[in-house]
Amino acid sequence: MNKITMRLQADHLIMEALKEDISSEDVSTNAVMKEKVQGEVDLICKQDGVIAGLDVFARVFELLDGDTVSEFFCEDGDEVRSGQLLGKVKGDIRVLLSGERVALNYLQRMSGIATYTHTVACLLKGSGTKLLDTRKTTPNMRIFEKYAVRVGGGYNHRYNLSDGVLLKDNHIGAAGGVAQAVAMAKEYAPFVRKIEVEVETLDMVREAVDAGADIIMLDNMSPEEMREAVRIIGGRAMTECSGNVTKENIAKLAELGVDYISSGALTHSASILDISMKNLHAVE
Amino acid sequence: MNKITMRLQADHLIMEALKEDISSEDVSTNAVMKEKVQGEVDLICKQDGVIAGLDVFARVFELLDGDTVSEFFCEDGDEVRSGQLLGKVKGDIRVLLSGERVALNYLQRMSGIATYTHTVACLLKGSGTKLLDTRKTTPNMRIFEKYAVRVGGGYNHRYNLSDGVLLKDNHIGAAGGVAQAVAMAKEYAPFVRKIEVEVETLDMVREAVDAGADIIMLDNMSPEEMREAVRIIGGRAMTECSGNVTKENIAKLAELGVDYISSGALTHSASILDISMKNLHAVE
Amino acid sequence: MNKITMRLQADHLIMEALKEDISSEDVSTNAVMKEKVQGEVDLICKQDGVIAGLDVFARVFELLDGDTVSEFFCEDGDEVRSGQLLGKVKGDIRVLLSGERVALNYLQRMSGIATYTHTVACLLKGSGTKLLDTRKTTPNMRIFEKYAVRVGGGYNHRYNLSDGVLLKDNHIGAAGGVAQAVAMAKEYAPFVRKIEVEVETLDMVREAVDAGADIIMLDNMSPEEMREAVRIIGGRAMTECSGNVTKENIAKLAELGVDYISSGALTHSASILDISMKNLHAVE
Amino acid sequence: MNKITMRLQADHLIMEALKEDISSEDVSTNAVMKEKVQGEVDLICKQDGVIAGLDVFARVFELLDGDTVSEFFCEDGDEVRSGQLLGKVKGDIRVLLSGERVALNYLQRMSGIATYTHTVACLLKGSGTKLLDTRKTTPNMRIFEKYAVRVGGGYNHRYNLSDGVLLKDNHIGAAGGVAQAVAMAKEYAPFVRKIEVEVETLDMVREAVDAGADIIMLDNMSPEEMREAVRIIGGRAMTECSGNVTKENIAKLAELGVDYISSGALTHSASILDISMKNLHAVE
Amino acid sequence: MNKITMRLQADHLIMEALKEDISSEDVSTNAVMKEKVQGEVDLICKQDGVIAGLDVFARVFELLDGDTVSEFFCEDGDEVRSGQLLGKVKGDIRVLLSGERVALNYLQRMSGIATYTHTVACLLKGSGTKLLDTRKTTPNMRIFEKYAVRVGGGYNHRYNLSDGVLLKDNHIGAAGGVAQAVAMAKEYAPFVRKIEVEVETLDMVREAVDAGADIIMLDNMSPEEMREAVRIIGGRAMTECSGNVTKENIAKLAELGVDYISSGALTHSASILDISMKNLHAVE
Amino acid sequence: MNKITMRLQADHLIMEALKEDISSEDVSTNAVMKEKVQGEVDLICKQDGVIAGLDVFARVFELLDGDTVSEFFCEDGDEVRSGQLLGKVKGDIRVLLSGERVALNYLQRMSGIATYTHTVACLLKGSGTKLLDTRKTTPNMRIFEKYAVRVGGGYNHRYNLSDGVLLKDNHIGAAGGVAQAVAMAKEYAPFVRKIEVEVETLDMVREAVDAGADIIMLDNMSPEEMREAVRIIGGRAMTECSGNVTKENIAKLAELGVDYISSGALTHSASILDISMKNLHAVE
Repeated sequence: MNKITMRLQADHLIMEALKEDISSEDVSTNAVMKEKVQGEVDLICKQDGVIAGLDVFARVFELLDGDTVSEFFCEDGDEVRSGQLLGKVKGDIRVLLSGERVALNYLQRMSGIATYTHTVACLLKGSGTKLLDTRKTTPNMRIFEKYAVRVGGGYNHRYNLSDGVLLKDNHIGAAGGVAQAVAMAKEYAPFVRKIEVEVETLDMVREAVDAGADIIMLDNMSPEEMREAVRIIGGRAMTECSGNVTKENIAKLAELGVDYISSGALTHSASILDISMKNLHAVE
Repeated sequence: MNKITMRLQADHLIMEALKEDISSEDVSTNAVMKEKVQGEVDLICKQDGVIAGLDVFARVFELLDGDTVSEFFCEDGDEVRSGQLLGKVKGDIRVLLSGERVALNYLQRMSGIATYTHTVACLLKGSGTKLLDTRKTTPNMRIFEKYAVRVGGGYNHRYNLSDGVLLKDNHIGAAGGVAQAVAMAKEYAPFVRKIEVEVETLDMVREAVDAGADIIMLDNMSPEEMREAVRIIGGRAMTECSGNVTKENIAKLAELGVDYISSGALTHSASILDISMKNLHAVE
Repeated sequence: MNKITMRLQADHLIMEALKEDISSEDVSTNAVMKEKVQGEVDLICKQDGVIAGLDVFARVFELLDGDTVSEFFCEDGDEVRSGQLLGKVKGDIRVLLSGERVALNYLQRMSGIATYTHTVACLLKGSGTKLLDTRKTTPNMRIFEKYAVRVGGGYNHRYNLSDGVLLKDNHIGAAGGVAQAVAMAKEYAPFVRKIEVEVETLDMVREAVDAGADIIMLDNMSPEEMREAVRIIGGRAMTECSGNVTKENIAKLAELGVDYISSGALTHSASILDISMKNLHAVE
Repeated sequence: MNKITMRLQADHLIMEALKEDISSEDVSTNAVMKEKVQGEVDLICKQDGVIAGLDVFARVFELLDGDTVSEFFCEDGDEVRSGQLLGKVKGDIRVLLSGERVALNYLQRMSGIATYTHTVACLLKGSGTKLLDTRKTTPNMRIFEKYAVRVGGGYNHRYNLSDGVLLKDNHIGAAGGVAQAVAMAKEYAPFVRKIEVEVETLDMVREAVDAGADIIMLDNMSPEEMREAVRIIGGRAMTECSGNVTKENIAKLAELGVDYISSGALTHSASILDISMKNLHAVE
Repeated sequence: MNKITMRLQADHLIMEALKEDISSEDVSTNAVMKEKVQGEVDLICKQDGVIAGLDVFARVFELLDGDTVSEFFCEDGDEVRSGQLLGKVKGDIRVLLSGERVALNYLQRMSGIATYTHTVACLLKGSGTKLLDTRKTTPNMRIFEKYAVRVGGGYNHRYNLSDGVLLKDNHIGAAGGVAQAVAMAKEYAPFVRKIEVEVETLDMVREAVDAGADIIMLDNMSPEEMREAVRIIGGRAMTECSGNVTKENIAKLAELGVDYISSGALTHSASILDISMKNLHAVE
Repeated sequence: MNKITMRLQADHLIMEALKEDISSEDVSTNAVMKEKVQGEVDLICKQDGVIAGLDVFARVFELLDGDTVSEFFCEDGDEVRSGQLLGKVKGDIRVLLSGERVALNYLQRMSGIATYTHTVACLLKGSGTKLLDTRKTTPNMRIFEKYAVRVGGGYNHRYNLSDGVLLKDNHIGAAGGVAQAVAMAKEYAPFVRKIEVEVETLDMVREAVDAGADIIMLDNMSPEEMREAVRIIGGRAMTECSGNVTKENIAKLAELGVDYISSGALTHSASILDISMKNLHAVE
């Protein structure tokens, strides 16, 4: 993860997460360890998958104590195996114990998303279709989850409501039609925005193309309708397929020739990747 | 969710989540709706499950605009069915559109956890064993996730490192033994804390009981060992079984007579419950 | 200003500004007014111009005391005259006195920007060229200043570094050329971003068009070069003229047929519009 | 700028400004530069003026990345010339690019204020009259703007409503007269405050002196009235002239013998000083 | 306490204090009271003293739940008696229970300070000498403690290091002498500040008067020296006596004719006033 | 104080306290010292007592300027004597002057509490009874004050409402009786909590024991009743004596055989320990 993003967005969230887990002190650790003892611990993978979030994992310990040092034997995006030694963390044993859970909570979730994304993205290999995430992220985890999607081989849709225009049925209704909605968005939005329109029928597809939409999202259409939609658009706009995407049907969807397939499941339903810290021991 | 907890812990996190999704403005909505139009939208369940987080869902809209009103036809803990109308939200249509995603992101995750917890808790029915969560929660989501576990029929383990004592191998090693660790914890921790000790062998079980541990966590033991451990303890401490808990083996674990079984999966690997907002329309 | 933007972005900044001006209390007012007295004050314009920021002005008083009520006789974007009564504020006189300076500091700056923008935008009337702002805004004032530009008849360029791609000479150098830079940006950036390239020569113009840039910024070119650049581009990308834009030369620049002209002066060098609060008096 | 002030007041505002400009990441830079490359860039003045804010400029980069180093060839308060090399910044090129705009936004505004203040202060040279700023500062910029006024040769009036007493017509009306207002302020305010009274007539001048006001502000008086006011006061209080101060009339105002002349324009209407970062290049 | 000060300074601190006492929820109350029950409780004094902080007490409950209403039968500054009913609070019983401790922690401390200050101030009655507080306040309690001093009949010295000038031995040493220090302070500080100088000998007293100090603090002088100092100063500056002030010697100090006596004990060593909430009961 | 607690809880509060004392700058120091001068100052005790808070004292200066170094010749918990040199602080003299008051405000209060606690705890020596603090702490000082109690030889009761269960009369009333209240608490609270019940009669004592309460607080009972209560309980629960505890009667209370005696006075009415910084001087 980029250092500036870490500093400006992630640090604050990590600190909040640490305070969530340590609201006054780590009672167990402080009860038995009154003084600093330098130690080292292994980071070990317990499942096959794609690793993501190593910098965030390291940052948790750094924020607790600037003297903690993490060394990794792999990097974000690598496929890792169960039993593999991913890295080592060295520092005050009390810091290693007190930060362990928060650090793993981030790393396991991010790696879980990268792993799941990787699996799905592989199903699209060879097609010209790319896999997109959505805004269905966990609250206060978006900066981490969207990064993990990229690490796993997916692409990011808009980051949030402020940096992308997506005109849905309610927007179109309020504007009085597809053409009006696109025109209003072009007039209002910063001119660097592409305009995306969500459509449900082939008529709407035609309207959206004519209105100059940059991206057309085909929402809950049948494969036949989507194939026809792609034909009608004929390259005049990018196409995104959304809704009811599963591992089972995604390869078929790609055959339809859409540019992008978006899937909320990447961020809302991936299981974690099991990773643990083991063999904590003092070092001289 | 308790109103005071909402005010003191949740409000701040919800505001952060809203800012994460709206860093300057909702460009799409603001482009086509310049003025307030009063509207109403349905909250509809798209999967069977247990609902949790209705107050949080409503609070998202209230924090955006105090004039928004949510009405629910069910309450947290209810089993809901696919297609069921859960409630309605009324207010400025722009607020309903701009808050929809964050509100659903909370509600879907919390309901997913409640649903999964409920399924697992049902497997323990009739036994004297209770289902516990862990600290393996999503960063900055603990207050919501631990609540959802309770809604689903689970029980909460300690909230964080500050409000519970759990002495693991490293603590015991640093203290010089189980007895010393328990003694040090009793001397140091606020006297209202129970002292829990994690043990891996029957010898450690005996040491822990003799040392006066209040709770003994049987970690990664075989069923036979656990049965023997429960016999040794003989009611002198509470027992918790942890590690390798699955839907498949949990009923067998309960038969061993442990008081509690803890499962990280409740909060780290539950899928969301699919819920959506539909039929947005202007009113009067 | 949109209510949600006010709530999520502006409120926090306004509160900070109030604390900047009242670090413990308004000593003068509190010395002489121990009790609440209901009062009313006029908001009067002292210069001709375009008004912008009335909601922000009102919000300052509301945040100090929810019982304060502002009534306006004009709205953002109106041309106002010296001596014109713009509105009235009613509430606890102590609140009116303590909030006056911060409220005016916002309103005067925002109206100054709207007024200056309006003057410049008028010089483009009849041409197909639109006036753009830049990121040369006052720190912690961007949400207010970019809004004021729109009120004055200008358009917004990207909001910040995160929601728009602009490849400058250093980016192009790092990438190894215009084509590579555009390709890398298309691969990396969320696919809803348009890609803008800053060029200084006609050769770079051709490269940028061929690379599929969505927007080409003509930086510090002579009028002749710009005319030729527009001809080369031939509608395949949008064009933006930047640098050395003055009131004197802007009409000539528009004649060259560029789509946009951007001007940092809109936000970094507009004078305030003089506005004051007068005739404060108690009401029954 | 004093290091402690930087730490306690400025750091937080600079971080907010950075987040305003980078709400998730610098997409353009991150797209083309995956790895750190050490670089160096020149800070060059493009207009004659007085420089102010070099420490703030440097701090922007330090807060992004503690390894960034700024070296300056001039110091705050120096008169600088168009084309002059002011300094160099060395660090990760990505940091130099991502921080450039915010750093310049501060430096240009602060130097603009110092430059304008210097011009006006020079008109008072030789007189015994000093130039004062006001509270008409940009919201959340006061700590920077008041510092820039001092750098330009001006003096600071009160910092905010909490640290100075200024009794205006409404305060005097509420108190029941000048004498009562001054008495109430002396009774209520911390005893380390001087009491300033704003007067509009010669009668009020007499009342204020008799009441023991420490400072008398002559508001919107004619030159003749002011001259007479100064005579009446006869050194028993300090005098401040306020309102309708222009570059044209300020020398004449100084001749009247007032101790201070205050001008809101110093902070609300100074143009920026044009400064830029050039010649960014990789080093070793 | 002034409403604006409450909103801008106190609210934030009270919220922090509430979070300090309720880091996730009030477990005891939530265990036994699942639903809202409207209730009422009495606020009863258990010691004689001077009450201070009623608005702060009420605000604690309002911030937890805007529907809570406090009614008081006395006001800040009143002398109250043991057993006296001071007021009633009505609202959700859970709110009354959860907010009780924080509300009382503020009220008891503020009333303790007001009571102690009142006792000391009474010893100065009839003399022309006023009682001052210092900056020896509890961290993050200054806004409350300085208010309580005023309620008890004391006066406030400077609020903090930013709003008052006090030149001590180290400042004088750094400047090169009393005269230089005063001159430098007059040149640097906002001109609305009075300049105070701390002196320890009669020679320094003379220097300070000659340098034009506005206030002279006589530090750790003998009564004889102080009497002589007051004579030397002869009304040309205000005088403050500081150090070794006790209830026993304060009347004697006042006889010396100093204008002010300052005492750190007012805020650092006053005991609380015992106050409690009793008779909580449900109301229909 | 533990480094992690310092980082996660204390740092933020110390920064707030510094901003409370320096809302813009230290005017006096900045007026006379324009440049950094390295200096050193002594920390000297002026009263006999127990020192507590040395790390917090040092941290105040570190947060102002990371180059400041504190060296101590004693450690928290040591008995110190009037006149004793406790340590030295070295750094920029301006930092030493600007941070002095806040640093001492923390150290004096914490040491005052440790000293008072030590005195009371000594009265219990030889008995099996331990001394407990309460939640009657100063708002936003709890983390410091509870630490000081431990340093002085006391023990901590629950940290706040979230980490301990204490069922009082109102909870019992709402639940419908002692047995019901205990059952509800055991069902609701995290299972790591001990359940404490406050009782006022011997009947309630019996009920509480039978209900399985872990701790029984004997509130405002006579010595005879308490003796009988201890007999009834017979080791089946821990006992806490609360209310009307004084230095005079505490030894007698201990004789009754209760396990704990809690005293609010430890944190709400201890005087400060007088400590000062002296002999500030420049070094090489």
